[in-house]
Amino acid sequence: MAEHIHAQDNPFCASKPSLRTIRLVIAYDGSDFSGWQKQKNGRSVQEELEKALLIMHKHEVRVIGSARTDAGVHAMGQVAGFHTDIASIPADHFVPALNRLLPRDIRVLSSEEVKPDFHARFDASLRRYRYFMSCGMAPDPFVLRYTHFSPHYPSLSILNSMAFVVLGEHDFSTFASAQDKSESKCRFISESVFFLERALLVYQIAGNAFLWRQVRSLVGTFLELEKKAKNPCEAEVMMREVLESKDRSKAGPTAPACGLFLWNIEYGERVHGHPAKAV
Amino acid sequence: MAEHIHAQDNPFCASKPSLRTIRLVIAYDGSDFSGWQKQKNGRSVQEELEKALLIMHKHEVRVIGSARTDAGVHAMGQVAGFHTDIASIPADHFVPALNRLLPRDIRVLSSEEVKPDFHARFDASLRRYRYFMSCGMAPDPFVLRYTHFSPHYPSLSILNSMAFVVLGEHDFSTFASAQDKSESKCRFISESVFFLERALLVYQIAGNAFLWRQVRSLVGTFLELEKKAKNPCEAEVMMREVLESKDRSKAGPTAPACGLFLWNIEYGERVHGHPAKAV
Repeated sequence: MAEHIHAQDNPFCASKPSLRTIRLVIAYDGSDFSGWQKQKNGRSVQEELEKALLIMHKHEVRVIGSARTDAGVHAMGQVAGFHTDIASIPADHFVPALNRLLPRDIRVLSSEEVKPDFHARFDASLRRYRYFMSCGMAPDPFVLRYTHFSPHYPSLSILNSMAFVVLGEHDFSTFASAQDKSESKCRFISESVFFLERALLVYQIAGNAFLWRQVRSLVGTFLELEKKAKNPCEAEVMMREVLESKDRSKAGPTAPACGLFLWNIEYGERVHGHPAKAV
Repeated sequence: MAEHIHAQDNPFCASKPSLRTIRLVIAYDGSDFSGWQKQKNGRSVQEELEKALLIMHKHEVRVIGSARTDAGVHAMGQVAGFHTDIASIPADHFVPALNRLLPRDIRVLSSEEVKPDFHARFDASLRRYRYFMSCGMAPDPFVLRYTHFSPHYPSLSILNSMAFVVLGEHDFSTFASAQDKSESKCRFISESVFFLERALLVYQIAGNAFLWRQVRSLVGTFLELEKKAKNPCEAEVMMREVLESKDRSKAGPTAPACGLFLWNIEYGERVHGHPAKAV
């Protein structure tokens, strides 16, 4: 999920004026993928998309995603951009054309033509994730595949007293993986809330960008502290201490990948780090 | 799905009085299974259950299911019975104990002690299936995994005019697979209806027993005739002709396995072939 920005990553720098830029909204069941990003070993979503585009175009087409997702993490609204030199296809016809070529665990939900210099990663102003949990009762396998199951039912008020602590701009070093190479660990969080939906416990978080495994590390910490805290006030104090410690050992275990969904991406006029403020 | 009744299949004939009989309700995601029944090659639900029971009991335990499901067919309420000589476990504790040992795509939803001679297959009075279809819009991969997708949106009134034709007792030879060895192809259908649920088209069928692949063959025929019929009356006439022909070549293609769920099983005082009639 880390957002390292490198100019050489941008295939649109050398874009030809005759090429159209297409933006796709994609959903995928991450269970059987090694993640979004193409890699030497393992099946990736990016590679499957590029294989389908290669068949359509008869030459290689590079796909840029809005955010990298880890192995086992799902997406309901991943956004990806690419350039096409096929003039004969209306932009929205990429939906059925690609879905015919893609495996069943990746579906293109929509496609549209966007401005030529659109960049799915650099232009994204807000990334929203949802983490789903099934609690209490033994879940059926259809729920279990897409949730983290806990026999214990946590207190929603205790969880929310902690969730609100991370709102705003903070240094998230406590929740940064050792492999995260981002220079700054500061990120701006505009939404952080737990709620119930159809008998599932959902954590929704949105921000300009995220550190690698930040969401799962936050969820794991919330769930661990919830068991220790006697009430919402105590939980809030504990969470604040953990956040301010910048000490990875104070964070809880990383929550399992199967519960996490990249929910949607927004492309608005927002200044990096300060959502809802026009440029 | 065929219900061949053989006395030697019944492991309860020689049951010891000290053994308790346990009835499980089980859900499974059939995508990665070769079906319910144990077989030489391929992963089966029955084998996974027997492996888990072997670990608990330290000896082989035979599991009897209420109905065989094919490769790729799911279950929300499969029922299975077995004998246990473990005296120390309350019947409902088999739920967490087995779920800890089972793979994530099989979940035990409930367990209870039943009369010693309970037989999951012979005692079932009603088997209910649901077939799920997503129509029109490109579905997300989470829906696609559990539905049959059709870009065409069929007419609900035309489908129901045909669904009602199969109600009651009929010879279903038209919908019998060549491999079905049942002596009689007569089955009693007590429910057969299409309805919409959460943007999905659902076909629900219930009966005393089913021929092998009968449900998928019926669904494939309904969908094929729906495209040909001009109105509900014409569709009803066409469906009646197909049913009465007893000619396999008149049936439509077998609908894909991924849309089919063994929904639930009822154990009531019903005479074989005549539901809702007390013995």
